[in-house]
Amino acid sequence: MKLDKNKRMGAMVKILSDHPNRIYTLKFFGELFGTAKSTVSEDIEEMAEAFENLGLGCLETIAGASGGVRLRPKLTQKDLLSFILDLCDRLSSPERVLPGGFLYRADLLYLPEIAQKIGEIMAFEFENTKPDFVITVETKGIPVAMMTARALDCPLVIARRNNEVTEGSSVSINYVSASSNRLQTMSLSRRAVKQGQKGLIIDDFMRGGGTAKGMSELLSEFDIEIAGVGVVITTSFPKEKLIKEYKALIELKEVSENSEVSRFSPARWVLER
Amino acid sequence: MKLDKNKRMGAMVKILSDHPNRIYTLKFFGELFGTAKSTVSEDIEEMAEAFENLGLGCLETIAGASGGVRLRPKLTQKDLLSFILDLCDRLSSPERVLPGGFLYRADLLYLPEIAQKIGEIMAFEFENTKPDFVITVETKGIPVAMMTARALDCPLVIARRNNEVTEGSSVSINYVSASSNRLQTMSLSRRAVKQGQKGLIIDDFMRGGGTAKGMSELLSEFDIEIAGVGVVITTSFPKEKLIKEYKALIELKEVSENSEVSRFSPARWVLER
Repeated sequence: MKLDKNKRMGAMVKILSDHPNRIYTLKFFGELFGTAKSTVSEDIEEMAEAFENLGLGCLETIAGASGGVRLRPKLTQKDLLSFILDLCDRLSSPERVLPGGFLYRADLLYLPEIAQKIGEIMAFEFENTKPDFVITVETKGIPVAMMTARALDCPLVIARRNNEVTEGSSVSINYVSASSNRLQTMSLSRRAVKQGQKGLIIDDFMRGGGTAKGMSELLSEFDIEIAGVGVVITTSFPKEKLIKEYKALIELKEVSENSEVSRFSPARWVLER
Repeated sequence: MKLDKNKRMGAMVKILSDHPNRIYTLKFFGELFGTAKSTVSEDIEEMAEAFENLGLGCLETIAGASGGVRLRPKLTQKDLLSFILDLCDRLSSPERVLPGGFLYRADLLYLPEIAQKIGEIMAFEFENTKPDFVITVETKGIPVAMMTARALDCPLVIARRNNEVTEGSSVSINYVSASSNRLQTMSLSRRAVKQGQKGLIIDDFMRGGGTAKGMSELLSEFDIEIAGVGVVITTSFPKEKLIKEYKALIELKEVSENSEVSRFSPARWVLER
């Protein structure tokens, strides 16, 4: 099918947007549109500039045999900051404070728009670590981890709290979660990962870091390297976490059950970038 | 910023693709691109035809005060069938058969590309029921439910197996799952839904229909209407499910643990559409 330039642009952007970070060859688009590869290449160059200006992401041409074009999600500093500030604002509404000083946050983390944007931020921050998969432990981190995997164009792996009959043989570890102060179990299906891969750990919340440490121990049982640890919210206290290197988007400064007050702020790197 | 037609097309498609089904006003695009609304309208019309021809979805103009433009995910019959057939093929590989005749399927359902496509199919099938949210019960259905919510541009709600401190007060019900033949519990946070809403139930697997029935009972505790029930895989037996109306994408015809054979086929409506 021969398409004019306007339509080529629209169709190409649709395909690239549906699978962020996936590399499509110029040949693929050339054949789809009935044009020369050089024409596709020119289209991309022209579009890339407009995308950059509008803050719609990074249209990148990759040279070489495995080359082609991909659309890397990339927020402008302004959009990143206003998104995180807005999220802090919504998180700190008084009715979110629960008995025991816990915070209701599932509604926000399950909103596709928010999960998708967080996933795109995580993907941008960790893309250079080249993970083979994203891993989380059920349940609240799943939507964000799913969207991170989508933005990285890699599989999602979910560690379970219990052994499941539908997961086949699995490896389990015990760990102590600081939030619950209880011994907990997490297990991972042997079929889910392969020795020698790299896994990116994503979770919604970190207090002591026990859960993230648990996931990293679980992965080391499979000889899997940790590409990085990304969490949406971390608490200011305890300052020392069980895991040394991690990237959080938001810091929970304090929460008081009695006064129904919680204070959130963007992580320092978000402010300083 | 004044943009030429090519770039307008690309930028508009990016924004529409990132939030399928969301209605953007012509005014929004007009202001973003520094053009008249009538120009935006012409751009859309031109693009819609190309999208239809390429099977990239349905670019729809909505008239009236709350009008604008949206991109409805829509697979062509050919793409739908080839996607489902390919999924059947991958599901039926012998190493997926587990002790007890269970099937390993998490890897496929957690692949962003597959979950996204299933979500788009579900959204297209249930969009006319106008759900306020998508609901699933943890865990394996979450990625697909998330992508359905994304494609419908509505929130995701997750029922839990246990009461969680981070969910606030919640309502719990007991139900019998045919798969496990056990009494199980599911609970839903009071904060997650509002009386009078409509919920679309999405799950990955249905055998007897106990889990879907459980979800529908849980929703009726909140005075919430069921918009519909969508599952990825249903079993041919038992033929009578606890839930009468549901839409499945794939039928599991038989599974034999000894011979490591499982047979899947597309649901009849997929073949007959």
